Amino acid sequence: MSGPQERQAASTLQLCRLMRPDDSNLAGNVHGGIILKMIEEAGCIIGTRHCNVQNGDRCLAALVRVEKTEFLSPMFIGEVAHVTAEITFTSKHSLEVQVKVIGENVLTGAKKLASKAALWYVPCSLKNVEKIMEVPPIKYASAEQEEEGRKRYEAQKMERMETKARIEEAVAPPANPADEPKEQHTVGFSQSSLIHLVGPSDCTLHDYVHGGATMKLMDEVAGIVAARHCNTNIVTASVDAINFHRKIKKGCVLTVTGRLTFISNKSMEIEVMVDASSMVEAEMRKYRAVTAFFTYISLDKDNKPLPVPSLKIESEDEQRRFDEGKARYLQNKAKRLSNNQGQQ
Amino acid sequence: MSGPQERQAASTLQLCRLMRPDDSNLAGNVHGGIILKMIEEAGCIIGTRHCNVQNGDRCLAALVRVEKTEFLSPMFIGEVAHVTAEITFTSKHSLEVQVKVIGENVLTGAKKLASKAALWYVPCSLKNVEKIMEVPPIKYASAEQEEEGRKRYEAQKMERMETKARIEEAVAPPANPADEPKEQHTVGFSQSSLIHLVGPSDCTLHDYVHGGATMKLMDEVAGIVAARHCNTNIVTASVDAINFHRKIKKGCVLTVTGRLTFISNKSMEIEVMVDASSMVEAEMRKYRAVTAFFTYISLDKDNKPLPVPSLKIESEDEQRRFDEGKARYLQNKAKRLSNNQGQQ
Amino acid sequence: MSGPQERQAASTLQLCRLMRPDDSNLAGNVHGGIILKMIEEAGCIIGTRHCNVQNGDRCLAALVRVEKTEFLSPMFIGEVAHVTAEITFTSKHSLEVQVKVIGENVLTGAKKLASKAALWYVPCSLKNVEKIMEVPPIKYASAEQEEEGRKRYEAQKMERMETKARIEEAVAPPANPADEPKEQHTVGFSQSSLIHLVGPSDCTLHDYVHGGATMKLMDEVAGIVAARHCNTNIVTASVDAINFHRKIKKGCVLTVTGRLTFISNKSMEIEVMVDASSMVEAEMRKYRAVTAFFTYISLDKDNKPLPVPSLKIESEDEQRRFDEGKARYLQNKAKRLSNNQGQQ
Repeated sequence: MSGPQERQAASTLQLCRLMRPDDSNLAGNVHGGIILKMIEEAGCIIGTRHCNVQNGDRCLAALVRVEKTEFLSPMFIGEVAHVTAEITFTSKHSLEVQVKVIGENVLTGAKKLASKAALWYVPCSLKNVEKIMEVPPIKYASAEQEEEGRKRYEAQKMERMETKARIEEAVAPPANPADEPKEQHTVGFSQSSLIHLVGPSDCTLHDYVHGGATMKLMDEVAGIVAARHCNTNIVTASVDAINFHRKIKKGCVLTVTGRLTFISNKSMEIEVMVDASSMVEAEMRKYRAVTAFFTYISLDKDNKPLPVPSLKIESEDEQRRFDEGKARYLQNKAKRLSNNQGQQ
Repeated sequence: MSGPQERQAASTLQLCRLMRPDDSNLAGNVHGGIILKMIEEAGCIIGTRHCNVQNGDRCLAALVRVEKTEFLSPMFIGEVAHVTAEITFTSKHSLEVQVKVIGENVLTGAKKLASKAALWYVPCSLKNVEKIMEVPPIKYASAEQEEEGRKRYEAQKMERMETKARIEEAVAPPANPADEPKEQHTVGFSQSSLIHLVGPSDCTLHDYVHGGATMKLMDEVAGIVAARHCNTNIVTASVDAINFHRKIKKGCVLTVTGRLTFISNKSMEIEVMVDASSMVEAEMRKYRAVTAFFTYISLDKDNKPLPVPSLKIESEDEQRRFDEGKARYLQNKAKRLSNNQGQQ
Repeated sequence: MSGPQERQAASTLQLCRLMRPDDSNLAGNVHGGIILKMIEEAGCIIGTRHCNVQNGDRCLAALVRVEKTEFLSPMFIGEVAHVTAEITFTSKHSLEVQVKVIGENVLTGAKKLASKAALWYVPCSLKNVEKIMEVPPIKYASAEQEEEGRKRYEAQKMERMETKARIEEAVAPPANPADEPKEQHTVGFSQSSLIHLVGPSDCTLHDYVHGGATMKLMDEVAGIVAARHCNTNIVTASVDAINFHRKIKKGCVLTVTGRLTFISNKSMEIEVMVDASSMVEAEMRKYRAVTAFFTYISLDKDNKPLPVPSLKIESEDEQRRFDEGKARYLQNKAKRLSNNQGQQ
């Protein structure tokens, strides 16, 4: 039915899925983590297919980075999500996948752009997960397109190297007993952790955790932190770039912790840390697998943003993190403004 | 607690399960695919048990065919589904299981027949999945009963051989970019695909996909197509006979595509195609694993059928498929009428 | 980032999780089985971690007993469950974990104690599941605390030995065809069974079923029995001590059956039996893996307990089980009263 030439050409991929009750919160808003998981699954499939058109070891595309992702309009339970993925750049050992998610209300037929994302993958050999395979080159529509891809590639490569050092330094927040009373609107009040035993359905053929499964857990914790701070309906507005420096193997226990770092008038920034450890291997220490900043907003009944209660700072560390969060917030705001002006 | 004689006698099986939010659509109707999955699980268990009472290789009952299945009355979230399965015929290498699903409203105690189905299984050796084992014979209540079973066996055997050739011919519909505007009520407008990475929880002990898991995905896509065409609450009314000619292995990617073929005054026929391919094996081409026709109806708030918007035909192929669908529709209608008269 | 001393100190564990639609019934009450599963997961993680701080074979903590567990206040969909687990006693080959579940309404900030439980685990070697490892001792705050732990240890040990003989005797209830009409409010009318194929996500690294997965299935059946008897919104009030005498392996079929044993003015006692059998191994007979008594109450719209319809006894066996249930009921009531007086 199809020959080798078809495999070569498969550089876009489309799929759709109905949003179910368990995908959504009480107000019917689909969790950002569900959308991130769909995006990553599409990227993993298209990336893996592309890297296996050539001869040599069979391989799987492993997620190494997701660029900053914005959730442009909320999706609701009962809507159909259309996910389109396309390979947009290939270097010798990595590839970029751009993914678009469109939400369709099947009762009205209305469609809206829910999210856009860019993900970077590297092909790991199925025989030896530490062996990175070569990526077959794609054809570009123009030399300009290739040049822009190369700029994105260089930029993310530099940032990944920078954060690699930083992530190891990050110190786990102190344990937070749920029954010890804390003052409301402090960092300690809303700080939350969940623990997840990595099971077979979280994993790839390699028995390593899908990046999408990790992001879904991260969003889950961030959502709990945001809800505990605001006591309202909260939704994910955006996720800063996430780098996946270390793989997480089946059988690990993940401790996912979220804490508020910065609050603007109408948004909350939550730092989420994923620590992995083996339950059974004594020699294997707990390690920081991923960190990321999630931005949440609080919505009223008509899905309009509400003001967010301000954060009570209780220590110098909290103040430092607040200031760093403020810098990120202002930088993002400036970037958005200049983008808007550029488009006019 | 139980001896060999008990294993021999286990020719019926009963089970029940509470219908959960994720089993249902927004209107609270349980998806037909959930009911098909429960039916197939019951059939697989009773078939596997029966084939393992004898000595020789251990084996698993693999689904090869489901006869036309009707959904007689809708089931709702919060109801209890009672599933009863019975082995009703055995040939040398296959067996027929008849399954009945009764829905019970636990708040009123009311029960209704939700669905009836007949499934055909063959026992595959656990050591070598290509080796079909012999099926121990069952005892019939009467010679007449056995004779009727044999007629059903011969009829399905012939149909399976016929479709085996046909399925390979079926051509995949063209890819359908979600963002390219299409005219409403055309075939292209509602055509939809989903992609599913086969994970461990979809599979049997053999690491082959459960037939029920495949049917659930097929119903999911068909439901999206129907909802996009009508913009109303839609439910599965029936599924034409499905033949499973080729097994699907763990690690495959399934592309499940649905498109409208025929529309009567109050029903839609949707053709669903399942294509399997390995993400990693370059030599393994995409192949058509299953095709089937799902019939959907559109319901108002009181669960009464609504008229369905007519289909705008845009090509000769679409017209040909429409005419074939109409022939199936008229044939089914005639069969229902003669059955009703036969019962009077 | 962390050294051996941290592993040593990890004797408490905290986690939280958002309650989702599939965790709850139609009235929004979280199923008791979901809470039991979270409790057991926390216990398994903390127990396994503790037993692997030493040298020697790697091991997993396997659940052998859960003490009587009460559900003190209902949890609702959308709330956050905070689970805190602590190792409170260690013998040479077993350990006790005490777990507390606090429900937090994130919209009001209100918290309430939802449940408290005590679980006993034994460490099984990963290489040989029949080999029980030694448990590293914990440090107690006082000699009194250790002495109290030892008393709990001796008490549960005696009860486990007693029930070991009893469980094997228990006879399966007769099969219960869903379509054969039965008189309402009899034992046979509400008796229910479900069948579950043990899949990979139910299992530990050992490929044995998590105790929490079994308890979730047991609560599911008990809930169906209770709802069929009352036709109202029902919730789990408590679960009597459960002993896990025999492990359940991946690939088994579980038949979980529930039947009413006793009814007081405002509560129902349901006996739940779990029988395991292999679908494929001819030599492996069906065996009784677990039994337990679940107590359910019926709630009105304001979550106030409703009177329960009385039970129509139809046989001597049913009368005997009713009398035994009544004795358990009166014993528990007397214990509660004396505890309340002791606290005054």
